[in-house]
Amino acid sequence: MRAVVMRGKKLVVDTVPDPVPGPGEALVRTLACGICGSDLHALEHAEKMSAAAREAGAPFALDTNRDLVMGHEFCVEVVDFGPGTTSRLAPGDRAVSMPMLLRPPRIEPIGYSNDFPGGYGELMVLGAGLLLPVPNGLATEHAALTEPMAVGLHAVEMAKLQKADVALVVGCGPVGLAVIAALRLAGAEPIVASDFSAVRRRLAATMGAHVVNDPAETPAIDAFRQAAGLRPAVIFECVGVPGLIDRLMKDAPRAARIVVAGVCMEDDRIRPMIAINKELSLQFVLGYAPHEFAGTLNAIADGRIDVAPLVTDRIGLGEVPAAFERLRSPGDQAKILVEPGRR
Amino acid sequence: MRAVVMRGKKLVVDTVPDPVPGPGEALVRTLACGICGSDLHALEHAEKMSAAAREAGAPFALDTNRDLVMGHEFCVEVVDFGPGTTSRLAPGDRAVSMPMLLRPPRIEPIGYSNDFPGGYGELMVLGAGLLLPVPNGLATEHAALTEPMAVGLHAVEMAKLQKADVALVVGCGPVGLAVIAALRLAGAEPIVASDFSAVRRRLAATMGAHVVNDPAETPAIDAFRQAAGLRPAVIFECVGVPGLIDRLMKDAPRAARIVVAGVCMEDDRIRPMIAINKELSLQFVLGYAPHEFAGTLNAIADGRIDVAPLVTDRIGLGEVPAAFERLRSPGDQAKILVEPGRR
Repeated sequence: MRAVVMRGKKLVVDTVPDPVPGPGEALVRTLACGICGSDLHALEHAEKMSAAAREAGAPFALDTNRDLVMGHEFCVEVVDFGPGTTSRLAPGDRAVSMPMLLRPPRIEPIGYSNDFPGGYGELMVLGAGLLLPVPNGLATEHAALTEPMAVGLHAVEMAKLQKADVALVVGCGPVGLAVIAALRLAGAEPIVASDFSAVRRRLAATMGAHVVNDPAETPAIDAFRQAAGLRPAVIFECVGVPGLIDRLMKDAPRAARIVVAGVCMEDDRIRPMIAINKELSLQFVLGYAPHEFAGTLNAIADGRIDVAPLVTDRIGLGEVPAAFERLRSPGDQAKILVEPGRR
Repeated sequence: MRAVVMRGKKLVVDTVPDPVPGPGEALVRTLACGICGSDLHALEHAEKMSAAAREAGAPFALDTNRDLVMGHEFCVEVVDFGPGTTSRLAPGDRAVSMPMLLRPPRIEPIGYSNDFPGGYGELMVLGAGLLLPVPNGLATEHAALTEPMAVGLHAVEMAKLQKADVALVVGCGPVGLAVIAALRLAGAEPIVASDFSAVRRRLAATMGAHVVNDPAETPAIDAFRQAAGLRPAVIFECVGVPGLIDRLMKDAPRAARIVVAGVCMEDDRIRPMIAINKELSLQFVLGYAPHEFAGTLNAIADGRIDVAPLVTDRIGLGEVPAAFERLRSPGDQAKILVEPGRR
């Protein structure tokens, strides 16, 4: 099959062997797969990412000397099933799935596995039991947003919002926009969102932010204070660059909770005294639980989350390397969808 | 009056002007005042401490060019009251107090104020309204432990312990020992405590730790796992040195909560990816609320917290500079009490 292969620190379009489904597994065709910021990080920092996963006790680790087909935000069509597999889905059905394959004792992270390709290839193998049928009428390109939107839902769940809390979302890339959608779904008000990009600020407002801030003009914390007064602050860090946690700790009001949803893969510096003096808390978050993933699909399907504005481009496999380049200086893109079947 | 004065980076015993109580204030004689680890830090890092307080928006800041009489863990005897002051206490009564003086718009932190002396002097001025009478029969040297023990009570309150949680206390200096006492008071079991010093490990057991660990022999996290199995981890960082937060993040089990009660006054380095991969949380804590302070005095007075083992030395003002030197390499000391009236 054709796939975009990460080889060393480069992306190349190549032909790779078709994956073969085992018992309990499905062979699926990738209809659409979003490009995630973590994939951009991985292309540059795969070793660090892998080392951190190992140090955190993750049951897997990338081998950066071997080929890798990334892509973990997908909507697929069922092609076939492995031997002796029963499923409520049939070939031709559309589905989404959490990007993991259980091959005991290993859990393969689809999109970051050397042995199983992710959604930047024409075909994948997924666990039949994890497939969720796409409800009739939900567009493929919107179903593909289930995974990134679930990340936002999970971050907001982990924040354990109280009625009085006011949320400040720092960074309105895909993670920040997903957090805004989940905050809106949770009934949070006001939602204050901050980003340097005018396009992203417009998207933030579209997704439900009540106040949008351009930090080049006004510090985000000032916009927050104006909207929130003395209500408790829950700050969502949705950027993931070194220095930002310390900066938010410095700006945060007393007793603020900082939810770290941005994935900073590099070493970082903090000044604990500042956090101590203000009794701040940091909650680091990652991924989502199965019920959050399924709940997100339902929320998209029944229109409680409108993801349509988030899809800013749709490309074929051949355009992926250039898209990665473009995304290195983000700004105006939200979600770019890769459609391996597109010619 | 005689006092131990911090002058530049040195402690000297000198004669300083008696403080004068204003309206609503009491003049008190210091009976006993504990030496706090923060005082040791302050002697070395006053500028950093002050800068961090300023950056955190604290309403005060030390002037390191001026004299300072430290000491904020005290039991006192009322000498006199300022003009027009009413109080339920009378001269001769013993009292404890949160170490702050409200002189609107300023809040003076007693022990870290250039304008009002702390407990390393013979006399202090305190707010009459904050004085809590020492219950009859409670020894002065035990009442003086109210402040440091309240720090432990507050840290445990902030941890919001659930029944299934198991606590690991890293560092059994005064803060760690106070946390252990508060955990015991809260009914936590098992309590796992770790310290390199055999003396401190014995104190940890005396204060209520069910398991004590020597990290030179076994990693603290292994002792924790053996005692806790897969129960959720709440890790109390009670040391406050650079690198420890990152180390605990690396060792912590998934979803652990780390309560940072150790006061690290220097820059620190963390690897966010490790915390993200495990969805850790950090709760930074400082001080206590008034009800926690009063509750701690009551718990000490009625024997629910036995602080007697914690007092490892009692000294006069003249011995304070040498005691600070001794405490720089801790190990075997818990709480040293300064008794300005001791000759």
